[in-house]
Amino acid sequence: MPETGPIARPHFNPLVERVSPPPVPSVVAWGKAYDGSKGPLIDLSQAVPGYPPHPDMLQWLSEAAASRDYTGYGPIEGESALRMAYAAHVSALYAADIGSANIHITSGCNQAFISVAMAIAGAGDTLVLTNPFYFNHETTLSMLGIKTELVRCDPKLGFLPDIKAVEAALKPGVRALAIVSPNNPTGAVYPPDLLDQIAALCKRNGSWLIVDETYRDFLAEGQKPHNLFSGDAWQDTVIGLYSFSKSFCIPGHRLGAVTAGDDLIAQVTKVMDNLQICAPRAAQAAVARALPALDDWRNANRLEITRRAEAMKAVMAALPDWTLEAIGAYFAYIRHPFAGRSSADVAEKLAKQAGIVCLPGEYFGEDQTDYLRFAFANADQETIGLLTARLSAFDAGTP
Amino acid sequence: MPETGPIARPHFNPLVERVSPPPVPSVVAWGKAYDGSKGPLIDLSQAVPGYPPHPDMLQWLSEAAASRDYTGYGPIEGESALRMAYAAHVSALYAADIGSANIHITSGCNQAFISVAMAIAGAGDTLVLTNPFYFNHETTLSMLGIKTELVRCDPKLGFLPDIKAVEAALKPGVRALAIVSPNNPTGAVYPPDLLDQIAALCKRNGSWLIVDETYRDFLAEGQKPHNLFSGDAWQDTVIGLYSFSKSFCIPGHRLGAVTAGDDLIAQVTKVMDNLQICAPRAAQAAVARALPALDDWRNANRLEITRRAEAMKAVMAALPDWTLEAIGAYFAYIRHPFAGRSSADVAEKLAKQAGIVCLPGEYFGEDQTDYLRFAFANADQETIGLLTARLSAFDAGTP
Repeated sequence: MPETGPIARPHFNPLVERVSPPPVPSVVAWGKAYDGSKGPLIDLSQAVPGYPPHPDMLQWLSEAAASRDYTGYGPIEGESALRMAYAAHVSALYAADIGSANIHITSGCNQAFISVAMAIAGAGDTLVLTNPFYFNHETTLSMLGIKTELVRCDPKLGFLPDIKAVEAALKPGVRALAIVSPNNPTGAVYPPDLLDQIAALCKRNGSWLIVDETYRDFLAEGQKPHNLFSGDAWQDTVIGLYSFSKSFCIPGHRLGAVTAGDDLIAQVTKVMDNLQICAPRAAQAAVARALPALDDWRNANRLEITRRAEAMKAVMAALPDWTLEAIGAYFAYIRHPFAGRSSADVAEKLAKQAGIVCLPGEYFGEDQTDYLRFAFANADQETIGLLTARLSAFDAGTP
Repeated sequence: MPETGPIARPHFNPLVERVSPPPVPSVVAWGKAYDGSKGPLIDLSQAVPGYPPHPDMLQWLSEAAASRDYTGYGPIEGESALRMAYAAHVSALYAADIGSANIHITSGCNQAFISVAMAIAGAGDTLVLTNPFYFNHETTLSMLGIKTELVRCDPKLGFLPDIKAVEAALKPGVRALAIVSPNNPTGAVYPPDLLDQIAALCKRNGSWLIVDETYRDFLAEGQKPHNLFSGDAWQDTVIGLYSFSKSFCIPGHRLGAVTAGDDLIAQVTKVMDNLQICAPRAAQAAVARALPALDDWRNANRLEITRRAEAMKAVMAALPDWTLEAIGAYFAYIRHPFAGRSSADVAEKLAKQAGIVCLPGEYFGEDQTDYLRFAFANADQETIGLLTARLSAFDAGTP
């Protein structure tokens, strides 16, 4: 209708428009372009367990989905059975007193993060992340207009942050520091003492400490959980995030959890009502059954993934030009031998020419272009063993 | 650690803190306080179909949940099978050319709304809603810091907005106008001509027109769909939102959809990757089967709900002190006879004393305290018939 006035094309939100497209699909596309000449494709990109869910898990998912009990709307905070089962689980794990009122079930851990971020910060506020970061943390904040400050994780410290750098980043008014342990992308496991010190700094600064423990269930034998949920005062500082996706091999069913003080849970509930009313119910009912019942199975998987980590270390030890900078739980963070070449370029060639799909370090933050993230837990030990020959024969060529 | 510096309690986001707790649970609590003295509780609060899902729907949900095919991560935009099935469905419904690239699957229609809102607007931008509004639209925008302007819907016009009021509200820079048709809370169905006029005003102003059609499948016989998706240019202005919850009686499985131009879908995809990566997959696979297969069943439900609307009209015709201001699809919007009394007070007493649970008009906007929303579709005709005696005997008493 040009005759009735000027026509302006409607706008997108520039904060969303400037975010890059989601990285994983483009990396998967590199893998699809591989011709198979070096043997089967080895997909170490997205963190997905390389073994199937337990048959009982599928059975319980199926039973719950067949039931009329879960077709209606459910409680926003989550099914009571799952909140209670998960509260009991984390209480035992941390020797802590965590009740179901401290638990909010979400559709996966990305949703746990964004619902917490929205509950504690708005446009113009500041959160601190580590560098490298989990990319969805950074994009979530930037599309909400929340400012991000970064704490550098030093390769010389095994990609842990120096406590002085944490202290310097916690400027007055910072709403929260978010960390991931075991870390994505580096695999670094934050020692309990370091976490205590970080929590104390956050508390002193009036900042929340968000601890994303998506990969918690894959700690090596003897690695202790932290003490952040001990005592009475944790609710004033600590927010735990978790995913049921990796541990039960069911990312497609989308379940995660927030562990926090009940006053924060009340704010998250308001956010979640607007995000999606409640997490899908049938899968919640199934996981409530699985959480205690599949404990042995999950522990056996943990031990298997520890063996995969050893296989990964053996591969890297045999490759003098490649450096294993950090490893833990699910990921290895590797310095590639093509200094000066972008990690995206190296990863693309690695996928297309050598059939090894991984994520470029530069997707995870500033100054990360010398690194690649290998989600080694996706592959069995035999497959991991194939990496030695393929990596040693690989040449990223000229830029 | 008071010795190391001042301790400040971490903050919540004031935009979230000031939002009231989700309204439905508190209303459900009123119903639980009813002593049964007037007969069985009649729950007309949250919009949930008063009949079960089709047995095949439960079977397909169960089969998909039992399958390993849907345990991994899926495409962010949704399962291809569901996107194609839904694109074919809406193409036929509107006689339009809508492809799967125009569809993004979400976890319910609240998530469709927030993902679209984030894709087109940020803190400080303005969206226009109607008054009364669907409360989650208003709270979603306010917690994101997006400003809301309201267009009044006149009771004298059957709670439709006057086109001059729409024009006046579409000030320069307004990012979008969001409407709900058939309306929640009033039930008002926007005529196609009015929608065409509104779309033309939005287009001229460079504003998106968001049309939430959650209750589309319950239009009365002979009520025509609109023409908003006709022609080529709709992608530059129109965004359709839909829920599979009501139509298939599966709100607990959380599925909805966005219909939009593919450039907007690309922005929504970036938001959704951060909101929850992808909607739960097994239910998507099941609904992809159900969408064509249960067409007759859904049409029979539509006719049943039309009969319930007639029963509701008959009830109101017999109550001279109560006024049916608008009715359609799922909801009746009723003026209660206790002028000057708050609708929350009337609704609470109605639940506790008469066993009729409904939502107060004031939850849906300014100047709505004379009204109550009855989700009549929840109850069968016989139950609706019980309202006559209960409402005529009801006295809200003195404030």
